[in-house]
Amino acid sequence: MVSNSDFVGRDIISVGDFGREELLFLLDAADRFESETRPLLAGKVAAALFFEPSTRTRLSFESAMGRLGGCCIGFAEGGVSSQAKGETLADTVRVVEGYGDLILIRHPREGSARLAAEFAGVPVVNCGDGAHQHPTQTFVDLYTMRRECKRLDGLHVVFVGDLRYGRTVHSLVTTLGHFDARLTLVSPSFLRLPKELRRELQEREVDFTEAQKVEPVIADADVIYVTRIQRERFTDPLEFEKAKDAFRIDNTMLHKAQPGVAILHPLPRVNEIPPEVDSHPHAAYFRQAHYGVAVRKAILGLLLGQAGEDTA
Amino acid sequence: MVSNSDFVGRDIISVGDFGREELLFLLDAADRFESETRPLLAGKVAAALFFEPSTRTRLSFESAMGRLGGCCIGFAEGGVSSQAKGETLADTVRVVEGYGDLILIRHPREGSARLAAEFAGVPVVNCGDGAHQHPTQTFVDLYTMRRECKRLDGLHVVFVGDLRYGRTVHSLVTTLGHFDARLTLVSPSFLRLPKELRRELQEREVDFTEAQKVEPVIADADVIYVTRIQRERFTDPLEFEKAKDAFRIDNTMLHKAQPGVAILHPLPRVNEIPPEVDSHPHAAYFRQAHYGVAVRKAILGLLLGQAGEDTA
Amino acid sequence: MVSNSDFVGRDIISVGDFGREELLFLLDAADRFESETRPLLAGKVAAALFFEPSTRTRLSFESAMGRLGGCCIGFAEGGVSSQAKGETLADTVRVVEGYGDLILIRHPREGSARLAAEFAGVPVVNCGDGAHQHPTQTFVDLYTMRRECKRLDGLHVVFVGDLRYGRTVHSLVTTLGHFDARLTLVSPSFLRLPKELRRELQEREVDFTEAQKVEPVIADADVIYVTRIQRERFTDPLEFEKAKDAFRIDNTMLHKAQPGVAILHPLPRVNEIPPEVDSHPHAAYFRQAHYGVAVRKAILGLLLGQAGEDTA
Repeated sequence: MVSNSDFVGRDIISVGDFGREELLFLLDAADRFESETRPLLAGKVAAALFFEPSTRTRLSFESAMGRLGGCCIGFAEGGVSSQAKGETLADTVRVVEGYGDLILIRHPREGSARLAAEFAGVPVVNCGDGAHQHPTQTFVDLYTMRRECKRLDGLHVVFVGDLRYGRTVHSLVTTLGHFDARLTLVSPSFLRLPKELRRELQEREVDFTEAQKVEPVIADADVIYVTRIQRERFTDPLEFEKAKDAFRIDNTMLHKAQPGVAILHPLPRVNEIPPEVDSHPHAAYFRQAHYGVAVRKAILGLLLGQAGEDTA
Repeated sequence: MVSNSDFVGRDIISVGDFGREELLFLLDAADRFESETRPLLAGKVAAALFFEPSTRTRLSFESAMGRLGGCCIGFAEGGVSSQAKGETLADTVRVVEGYGDLILIRHPREGSARLAAEFAGVPVVNCGDGAHQHPTQTFVDLYTMRRECKRLDGLHVVFVGDLRYGRTVHSLVTTLGHFDARLTLVSPSFLRLPKELRRELQEREVDFTEAQKVEPVIADADVIYVTRIQRERFTDPLEFEKAKDAFRIDNTMLHKAQPGVAILHPLPRVNEIPPEVDSHPHAAYFRQAHYGVAVRKAILGLLLGQAGEDTA
Repeated sequence: MVSNSDFVGRDIISVGDFGREELLFLLDAADRFESETRPLLAGKVAAALFFEPSTRTRLSFESAMGRLGGCCIGFAEGGVSSQAKGETLADTVRVVEGYGDLILIRHPREGSARLAAEFAGVPVVNCGDGAHQHPTQTFVDLYTMRRECKRLDGLHVVFVGDLRYGRTVHSLVTTLGHFDARLTLVSPSFLRLPKELRRELQEREVDFTEAQKVEPVIADADVIYVTRIQRERFTDPLEFEKAKDAFRIDNTMLHKAQPGVAILHPLPRVNEIPPEVDSHPHAAYFRQAHYGVAVRKAILGLLLGQAGEDTA
């Protein structure tokens, strides 16, 4: 039985550290914290070390902290940190743990959040370490699916786009294994989900299939999770142009899907979802971004020993 | 009859959207909010999207928010936003409206604040969109004139400097039309107030004249509003040197003005007002900057449903 | 007899402005403020003008302000300030004094904090002006020595490294003169303590000796204060490599010191203290950074008229 004490002072580094019950506990907490307006974190300080820029993650954490009466300190890009003077990440963390009640870290290097957690005496939240992990984004994605589909078990989720480099996809597919999901993975052949991840899904007996076209596979999709295909991944510009069009979701295509299909995207989106889709009642990508505040209020609250009010 | 409800949830995009009574209502609110120390905006979050740097506007809004117990999130320059990844402004705004109770935006492109307001479900405050509008600066300018001159109707205001590119001048001249002002516009000939604006003043029967020298026109000025002439506007460096000296206000010149004339400047100033003028009792440009906090407290308060205490 | 009123509204520019009793008063206040959790500075605003980047100083001030319920506004690097538009520091300060209850300033130019204080009507705290002064770091260093050694009078302090350029060393040696310290100054010959400072120590009859090797002088040291030797100070790379090794503190060397010797460093450290030393029970450099929050809470509180609770 999961309880608040499982979260107090805990590091949030990888989705692999969280089992089904813990994930559900966190989503329930997000439901409670969404409407939480008491200054539960007054006088608390979150140290946000963003060695790489971020709009959504950093701003939603700052908003979550502010709404609960606390404050954020830190930096929004690596240039102003003392890493520029040759300080190791371990040292930066051991300094900053004295300034904040928890540390939020985004860093270009894989494994940096885990390293930070080893050195810090306060909880560390991984806000993205290279192509590796971005666990709070996964919590937001799960929360969005449950809000939009009214359930989380047994969903058919179609992933579309760059499944090779997108860390949000990697974290999400493995986590959906806890919820008896059926996955369809649609990507250009050279942007398939990495082999190790496919093997992991097989070993855990997650039901997944791969495809190279979107239209034939969306008829019974509950969720379409779209990601951005970046030009810089392609050596041949022509290949990029082809991929860009082939892995695009538009209204014509959506007519072949269930009317209630939820369309998610971690954002920013460029061409892969045209503006015409925005008015689709289940175009959920902006709500997905907004849910980020509730989820991050819950994370901050739980790690710092606040459970949020049960208004039920 | 203007009331608080006219301001709750409202966008502040252009001074053209505000009539005489609304402007006076806002200035009265600034008087009340100046001494307001209650945490009226506790738990409230302002999302400050500054795609261009700003000292005065951003810091005075942050100060206003902090003094009322709320907090600001956001960025101070475009480089760390996801526009760099190709996100449209409309998308950024639709994300950020979930993080803040209102959006403050400065953007190099004209019309961007209006666009942001169309997409955002929360109030948007234009903090400068290119050469176009900067309405809260105009409110501050009006507030300063009323504080310094003890009235706002029937003032003779002499504008000096670059009247062609300065957005603060453009907003202010049209707004002064509501207050029966007499305007004298002094500038190098190629930095005259734009034709469309002059025509607008004529149509609205605002009493204005143009001049190319400051000294002959300041004898009965109530306000001298000076702006910076930027070197980069000139193709001929010699012309710049001449203009720099000709449109400079110094103490010798001020001896020809009324002793009570208020000297305003939106700042930063460079050479157009030498330091000797700073000790003039009516050199009001630093007070003008400071009034920015009271005015912006009022704006934040009113938009978010707080009227401020009537201590009268 | 020093009292709170000696600190209310005061500028903190140079350690030379503080006598022995005032320093002790400040350290006592830091003891009280360390555990202070009341929102004593709610609604207060500190304007942090960091024209040069800083991790420790800026973040610890932001943390201190946040823990006391106040907030920080400002900028973390000069690029986004209006100095870029040609504004003088005096003007920036006269604008910003209207936004904050005090001003924190870091600036590359010596004397800039003093200049800021002359123009500002609110207290100014020097957070580092070039190679000149960094008084709050000195307060933190003294506080650390008293915490780690349980006394401040009569300590033998060994300084190691770059004693020529390090502003933290300069402020600290002169201040230790108030506490009957014995100083040993160990540095490469061309990075000796500047002549004027050595003369000042002689005039004030501070007991100091100079050395070029660490090992022979640490047997009875109470404190070893290590600083970073920067490659860019050397014209000959070979000389740098030699210096780097000669002025390094490691565990073998520390076996020759008293077991209770406190090891301090203003951080960031690079090679001058290897990681093996971190587990030494009196490796105090990270605690030193953390004490920065208590000391800065005390500074902010005292300047703004709050004494902190006497829980004794």
